[in-house]
Amino acid sequence: MDRDRFEKQLKFILEIDQEKNIFRQTHLTHMGRAENDSEHAWHMAIMLYLLKEYANEEFDLAKAMMMALIHDIVEIDAGDTYAYDEKGKATEKEREEKAAERIFGLLPEDQGDKLKALFKEYEALETPEARIVRSMDNLQPLLLNDSNDGADWKRRKVGITQVKKRHQETFLGSKELGEFAMELLDKNVKNGNIENK
Amino acid sequence: MDRDRFEKQLKFILEIDQEKNIFRQTHLTHMGRAENDSEHAWHMAIMLYLLKEYANEEFDLAKAMMMALIHDIVEIDAGDTYAYDEKGKATEKEREEKAAERIFGLLPEDQGDKLKALFKEYEALETPEARIVRSMDNLQPLLLNDSNDGADWKRRKVGITQVKKRHQETFLGSKELGEFAMELLDKNVKNGNIENK
Repeated sequence: MDRDRFEKQLKFILEIDQEKNIFRQTHLTHMGRAENDSEHAWHMAIMLYLLKEYANEEFDLAKAMMMALIHDIVEIDAGDTYAYDEKGKATEKEREEKAAERIFGLLPEDQGDKLKALFKEYEALETPEARIVRSMDNLQPLLLNDSNDGADWKRRKVGITQVKKRHQETFLGSKELGEFAMELLDKNVKNGNIENK
Repeated sequence: MDRDRFEKQLKFILEIDQEKNIFRQTHLTHMGRAENDSEHAWHMAIMLYLLKEYANEEFDLAKAMMMALIHDIVEIDAGDTYAYDEKGKATEKEREEKAAERIFGLLPEDQGDKLKALFKEYEALETPEARIVRSMDNLQPLLLNDSNDGADWKRRKVGITQVKKRHQETFLGSKELGEFAMELLDKNVKNGNIENK
């Protein structure tokens, strides 16, 4: 065992423990507390396994799962930017790139480079894995929010135009899941959970 | 899309959200709150990816990651049984098997059977994937507890004999990680975090 290499791996493993303290806008089912990033990522990885039959394209499951598991690690430094926070979104990319350098930089160089590349691949949405992970990244909070009668949409006074715009990317990984997302959203407009604006 | 099948998948996906409310004896780094099962599983899956070079045997990464991600789902019904709770351990197997029937039974039959088999495979520790997942299942809380100066061991007044007995299974998946676990444990006996009994 190369002890220096192993110490770097351990440092990263302990560092990412902090992702469990990065809370999102989404709340757990049964009107629970706010969800954190590591819980969200865990849920997405299981969804990739269970819903892979709906993907538009073949994809590498282990790669997509790892992409999902690490896609929010940068938020340890950069914080969670709400999907409909225009001001936060403007600086998000820069903040996250800096975070990726620091956090993945804790690992041995080969592994750090690999995870940085995986994170960037996700952001670029140009591969089958990135596309299906994005579908899950959108679908997972949608399911929780719908189960809570749209509490998060109501609290943030979100309009259907901006939500549907975001969910265009759900179609990139799965046409079927994209259509299902639209169906759920329409239902939530109808019952007043999402503003018709 | 077979809508009946999809509804079953969604039901399971929403059900397992409750794993985020199953709290463990281990606390997060920096003397944080108690960790929950889904966070523990997320951490283990990333560790499988990063530490696979130390495994005794070749293993299927996607399979091992999924095994780690779902290994505690039964605790939604059965609760978390502390590793050194002899009384709880006596009924654990029966409670968990019942839980597996109910929870994995929410899925379409093919997927439910697959996950039930994966869970049982983990418990049996007879395949390379099960063995390396067990190493991570032991190593992950050890790292957190060590980072907190052994707070969880001290609180529970745990003795080195029982901890080392448990960590014999860490060697099953990785001799190198097993030896590292012993080293960490000896350090924690020396500085008084684990009782020498």
